[in-house]
Amino acid sequence: MTTTPTSSGTSRRGRPGYDREALLTVCVEAFNRHGYEATSMGALSRELGISKSAIYHHVSSKEEILDIALNRSLAELERVVSEAEALGAPAVDELETIIRESVKVLTASLPYVTLLLRLRGNSEMEVKALQRRREITLRIAELIRQAQADGDLREDVDARTASRLAMGMVNSLVDWYRPQDGQPDDALAATVTHLLLDGLRSPRS
Amino acid sequence: MTTTPTSSGTSRRGRPGYDREALLTVCVEAFNRHGYEATSMGALSRELGISKSAIYHHVSSKEEILDIALNRSLAELERVVSEAEALGAPAVDELETIIRESVKVLTASLPYVTLLLRLRGNSEMEVKALQRRREITLRIAELIRQAQADGDLREDVDARTASRLAMGMVNSLVDWYRPQDGQPDDALAATVTHLLLDGLRSPRS
Repeated sequence: MTTTPTSSGTSRRGRPGYDREALLTVCVEAFNRHGYEATSMGALSRELGISKSAIYHHVSSKEEILDIALNRSLAELERVVSEAEALGAPAVDELETIIRESVKVLTASLPYVTLLLRLRGNSEMEVKALQRRREITLRIAELIRQAQADGDLREDVDARTASRLAMGMVNSLVDWYRPQDGQPDDALAATVTHLLLDGLRSPRS
Repeated sequence: MTTTPTSSGTSRRGRPGYDREALLTVCVEAFNRHGYEATSMGALSRELGISKSAIYHHVSSKEEILDIALNRSLAELERVVSEAEALGAPAVDELETIIRESVKVLTASLPYVTLLLRLRGNSEMEVKALQRRREITLRIAELIRQAQADGDLREDVDARTASRLAMGMVNSLVDWYRPQDGQPDDALAATVTHLLLDGLRSPRS
């Protein structure tokens, strides 16, 4: 029995050329480039250079690919929020952790998070994913509200709006960030956190 | 001769039901909902409830609709930057003006700017539009650099990154903002400007 090394390190199933992990990544990148609705199984087959039946060896449908991809990025972002909430730290510190760790998730899992952020809610699956995104935003808004009550964040900004704008800045990375080797980008995470908490203005001015 | 009032106030051409302006808006909203590539002229015809030939009375192709829509939002955003640069004010004030006025453009022209921001560069027209967006970001980065040199903005953030992150927060509005009557939203513009310049943290803490 021979084994072929794969970049993802997951077990190799079936056809040469792709394990399930590598196949998912190529499909997700195609969805991001052309839009999920515009990308048929035939287009994925051409993109991958394998037959449709070879794709069906790994996944049952285009919808399953979307489902796996969305669950993966949502689970990562939810983990970030849950771990921060479990710190038992002041709300402002938990918020800072969420911003920093969310940037790291985005930079390390760029194609998956990009797909999530470009959803439009055109199917039940997409609506459910958007609902989970909204719940994340609400949990962050609740932390902002708490940090405002603690006197650590300014109270002249509505917490829900602040949560959306803060995560909006984080998420905007997908439009221009190009990852190096799927590693989290610690420096960029520090910059975004600093900018969101302290603003652009010089403390001297 | 009878005339029918239209919401946009532009001259009414041809078919009942739509002037060119209203037709454009419906098409742009369909592009935003399903993706430009996934939306055929047939789909636009069903969406509008008129025949394809009735659409061709107003525009020559799907590409022309995209071209008009992209030019419109780019021209508005470029005007905001040019007017701010012409103020002859300190760079930090020109930057503040750009942030505030960009939010107003987004909230007043939401479907058009949404289409622009969701482009992926899949055609020559899209690549040109992305290039114009990049030039706007560079002009804003130059103002940030100047304001850093003036001592008005903190120097520990790279100007190009700051420009992208600031406009990223502004642009993220398209994901959740729902406009009232296509009017600019002055209060939201003030909130975004304040947050970007001064940050979330309480000045007391």
